[in-house]
Parts: sequence; C-alpha cells; structure tokens
Amino acid sequence: MKKIVTVEATPNIAVVKYWGKRDESLILPTNSSISMTVDSLKTRTSVMFDPSLKKDEFWLNGKKVDLDKNPEAKERLKQLEVIRKRARITHHARIVSINGFPTAAGFASSASGLAALAVAASKAAGLKLDTKQLSILARLGSGSASRSVMGGFVEWQKGEKADGSDSHAIQLANHQHWPQMRLVSAVVNAGKKKLSSRAGMKQTIATSALYRARLEHHLPKVVPEMRRAIAHKDFATFADITMRESNSLHSVMADTWPPIHYMNDASREIVALVHELNEKAGHTIAAYTFDAGPNAHIYTLAQNVDKVKRMLKQVKAVKKVVVSKPGPGPVELTKPTDHLIDPETGRVRKHSFNEKRQEIIVRR
Amino acid sequence: MKKIVTVEATPNIAVVKYWGKRDESLILPTNSSISMTVDSLKTRTSVMFDPSLKKDEFWLNGKKVDLDKNPEAKERLKQLEVIRKRARITHHARIVSINGFPTAAGFASSASGLAALAVAASKAAGLKLDTKQLSILARLGSGSASRSVMGGFVEWQKGEKADGSDSHAIQLANHQHWPQMRLVSAVVNAGKKKLSSRAGMKQTIATSALYRARLEHHLPKVVPEMRRAIAHKDFATFADITMRESNSLHSVMADTWPPIHYMNDASREIVALVHELNEKAGHTIAAYTFDAGPNAHIYTLAQNVDKVKRMLKQVKAVKKVVVSKPGPGPVELTKPTDHLIDPETGRVRKHSFNEKRQEIIVRR
Repeated sequence: MKKIVTVEATPNIAVVKYWGKRDESLILPTNSSISMTVDSLKTRTSVMFDPSLKKDEFWLNGKKVDLDKNPEAKERLKQLEVIRKRARITHHARIVSINGFPTAAGFASSASGLAALAVAASKAAGLKLDTKQLSILARLGSGSASRSVMGGFVEWQKGEKADGSDSHAIQLANHQHWPQMRLVSAVVNAGKKKLSSRAGMKQTIATSALYRARLEHHLPKVVPEMRRAIAHKDFATFADITMRESNSLHSVMADTWPPIHYMNDASREIVALVHELNEKAGHTIAAYTFDAGPNAHIYTLAQNVDKVKRMLKQVKAVKKVVVSKPGPGPVELTKPTDHLIDPETGRVRKHSFNEKRQEIIVRR
Repeated sequence: MKKIVTVEATPNIAVVKYWGKRDESLILPTNSSISMTVDSLKTRTSVMFDPSLKKDEFWLNGKKVDLDKNPEAKERLKQLEVIRKRARITHHARIVSINGFPTAAGFASSASGLAALAVAASKAAGLKLDTKQLSILARLGSGSASRSVMGGFVEWQKGEKADGSDSHAIQLANHQHWPQMRLVSAVVNAGKKKLSSRAGMKQTIATSALYRARLEHHLPKVVPEMRRAIAHKDFATFADITMRESNSLHSVMADTWPPIHYMNDASREIVALVHELNEKAGHTIAAYTFDAGPNAHIYTLAQNVDKVKRMLKQVKAVKKVVVSKPGPGPVELTKPTDHLIDPETGRVRKHSFNEKRQEIIVRR
C-alpha cells in the first residue's frame, strides 16, 4: 500500500488586496492583505512520494503537465523542495489535482491548488506542520495561496524578515464567526487573454506614480479598519472598505505603464448597479470587489442574496453566478475511494469533474 | 445699424489635464494644465448688446435657451456681468451660438463656445482686452475655455491669488511652431449619460486617496517636462507624458467614491492598439488621451496620420474620425453676412450647420 494524502482546498477572495512583491523569488508582499476563504470551488489534490518515480509528476484536470517544458508550473511547485529538505527525503512526488468546477468558468485555482498541495504534500512527506508553516509553503507557489490554508477570515501578514519566515497568514476569525456572510460571484465574459498578475504587479511597482500613495497612505489605514469590521461583524464598514480597496487597486493598475485593465464594461456596469442597489436600500447591503479579471465578487449577507442575484440578471454579460459562504479551509479526505491515486498500485486513477452533478468522480 | 461682433473659436485637447478646483465659484484649478488648440470643430458666436432687450438672450444651435429655467446655462454666461461692469454698460445681450459640427458627434463645445463668447462679448461691449484678460473671462464659464482663447500650445497657469486674477492661460508656442502636429479624434459610441465633469472633479478631490499623490508628486514634474517637450518639438517625450497623464487622470477618477468611469471597452481597446502601434514602429509615433468621455484623441505627426487611421478602423465602436492641426485660436468674422444676428434689424438670422458641406449656413 502506498501512502497517499488527499486534500481539498478552496479559493479566497481578498477584501484588502495583494498587489506588489518586495521579493520576487520568495513571494514576499509589499503589504498585508485580508480575505475570506470560501466553501465552494474546491480543488482536490492527491500526493504520493515514491522511490519508483524518476522525477516529480504533475497532473492537472486529468492531463499530465510536462514540467520540463513548463517552467512556470515547475516554479509554482517549488515548495516540494522545501518539504523534501525538511522531511529529509529524496523521493519524487506524484501530484494529481482536479478542480471541482468548470475551468472555463474563469475562476482562478492557483490559491486553492497550492494550498491543497501544501497540506497534502507536507503530510505525505511525514511532516506535521502548523498553519503558519503551511501558509509559508503555499506562499512559495502563489502569494494568495498563503491565505487559503486557513478557513474563515484570514490576514496574510506581510512580515519584515528577508527570509520570509514571518510572512504568512493568520486567522482573524473562523468560518462560523459570521455565518450570514455570503459571496456572490458573477462570471463575466472576458475578452482577450489578460496579463498575468505576476507580471502586472511587477509593472505597477516599477511605473505607477500613484502606487506609492496606495502603499504609504491608503493601506496602513485600511488593514486595521478591516480587522475591526470583521471582529465586530460590521457589514457597512466591511463593504465600504472592500469597494474602495478594489477601486484603489484597479486605479493603480490603470496608472501602470503600459496601463493594465482587468475590469471591462460589464464589470463597471456591475459597480454602478451595486451603488444603485445600496442607494435604493438606504444603506450598504452589497460590496463588489474585482481581482485580475472581469469577474465580479459581491459580498452580501444571506438575507440580501436574492436582491444581488436579481440585480446581476440585468447584466447581459454575466453567464454564471456562484454563491459561497465562509469556508473551513483545507479538509483532508481519508476515504480511500476519494484519492486520485490508487493506494494499491500508486497509479493515477481515472477521474473527472461531472458538471451536471457538480461533483468530482473518481473511478476505482 | 446694430453693433454685432462675431467670433469663431475651437476646442483644445489637454495633454496635462485639468481636474479639480480650489475655488468652485471662480473656477480656479488645483493644478496648471497644458493643451493644444485645434483648427477644427469651430463654434461661431455672435453677440449684440442692445437697450431694447429686457434680459439676456441665448440661442444655441438654432434654439433659444430659457435662461430662467436653465440655471446651469446662466451660470456659464456669468462673464457677461463682469464685461458689463468693466465696460460700464447696463444693456442686455443677445448671444447666438452654433457649432460647426454635428452635436451628436460627442465633442464638447463648452471650451470653444465660452472662448468665442469672451472675445465677441468683450468687443461688442467696447472693451479692448488682451488674451490674459480674455482667458480669465472665458474661465468663469468653463475652466478649459480659458485655454481656447489662444492658438497653438497653451498653458493655463493655476495662479495663486484668491481673486483668480493670475489664473489664466499663456501661449507656450503659436500654431505655426509645430506644423507637423496632428490630432486624430475618434468618436466612440457612448453608453449611458455621463456624470458632468464639474460634479466629477469635485467628488475626486473630496474622496480619492490617490488624488493627492497626483497633485503633489506627479503633476509638478509633468508640467515643466511638457513645456520643454513642446519647445523642442520632442514628440517622444510629448507623447509619453500625454499618455501617462491621461492614465493618471482616469486612475484618480476610478479611485473616486463612487468611482467615475468615462472610458469604456472601446477606449481601452484603442489604448492597447496605440501601445501596439508604437511597439511595432520601434518608437513612439502616437499618443492617446481621454477626457470626460469615451472619445479617443490621438496626437501624432503628419506622416503617421494614415497609420493611426488604419489602426482605428479595427475598432468597431469608432463611428467617426476627425483630423485636426494646431489652430490659430479665436478669429473674428467681419463679413456682415457671417453674423448670426442681422445688423440692420438686430434679429436672429436663420442659420444651421450643413453636415454634408461641413459648413455653417446663414440666411440673409
């Protein structure tokens, strides 16, 4: 029997954004960020370290990724080296990962994928790590993944040290703290292929005259305010900061040279509709936020989800809506039939995402 | 015979933008701005002061505007009070104004209109004013109009005094200084009605955290650099500043609360195409700039106009393209048949804009 560890993790949607690194290689951010880990859009990852493997092997959504020809994917998996070193093992790993949502939906899966990998791979290597250590591992592949190793509301503290040992997430509140919280995500038709956020944030730091103001004046005020809003379940403040923060981020993107535009006319239509909705309600009941793409993520409370959904129906370019709650963070699946790798043979099992049943199917 | 003065003036397109007032009533700006006055898109205005008039009368594009019911239009004409006071007259004025371009084209006419009014009305009242004084008069109705009282390249110096007496335009170079310069303006289909720039800039000052950085760090550097670029006819620098400056402006607009978006997907498509065009050319041959609307204004040199036009043909939403040169500024029309008011009767003549002939037609 082979030792297989299988973990499911979910994305997080930031309300105080991460945009800019002070260290490109270690992925150390210029500012602390805050997000909510959601309960939907799971990525499942199975990991096996095995002496029979000649090199690391990575399967994504049923297809083997040639790591020699894909240096970007290899770079994202660099936590494997850290894990092997710490566990004092030399075996290579078989990593099998699948997203429990259609890839075409336009949801990013790097945060959920690399958080699942950190939890699964460290355990498969025999390590027992706490969430801070897991956060640092996940961070090495993707900054925002550092926040997906925990559930509920999470702050990625930027840290000060050059080695990144204090740049990790902490949980501000678990997923049961604010049970009424909802995230309504609207998938918007995207146009041309976008610039990667990795390249984009590098450009912003190098060229935007307004970025420094965001970093020095805006963010230091916003982070403690957001912590308080979450602690007190103060939705109006939470929403206000979330929207202004998204606006600030996309402003410095537009001030970048050449300018970066991730939002499109449909995104901006949703922005205007959310402001209208809040005005009509007489108080703030919904807050938009946008990442490196046109999809709108709208935070609201359970009692207002239907209003937000109705609002989104007016926007022609919205092709799918997903409602999430605060999620618990990564969960290990211990039922042997859930593994994407066969524990008896060590081979990759046939597996797929069934869109109709919204389920990951694993063949024995 | 009545004394009629008729003047034609043209718009200007800023390369260092005006966005923000330090005095709302006197229209004093927070920063100096620089523009080129173009030779096309003329507004013709005839003015007559006459004792027979019971109140000021304003005709725009063939229709009488009821100033009692339109306080905004009345506010824009407040230079009339200043002129009467200075000329020591009490007569009311008949003002007849028509745009020599289709109103639906989406070109703003407040700069050309109020510059034409300042020149025509002051002369009709018997005043002999220099361009600085005319600039201050025009400014009272619309900030950007202060730059249209002069031709070529113009700087509106923000001034320091509380009474606005030092807040006026100066000519950096006349319209013959850089004869190769062209402005290719692309009219883009607009969506919903936009926020007025007057209201928008007020909101930006009040709410944008990034605006201060623009004002304190970005603009003080950009203004002298742009002066130098114009003096040396250094197109690459001129273009670079123009584009970054437009990006900076639209960034602080997006950082405003609630956010202001004048550019749309077609505008951003043009931005990307201009960057592509420059990259392909190996050096900067075109520079986009956007004001309070989705229309793109592209500065280029005569030899590259065709390339820019070809580029714009790729953008489906572009419905009209106008090419302009540096213009001479306001011009008085002394031929009696050009007046929009009949000098014999003092009555408004029948007049219209003939789109086919691109000409203002005045019936005798």
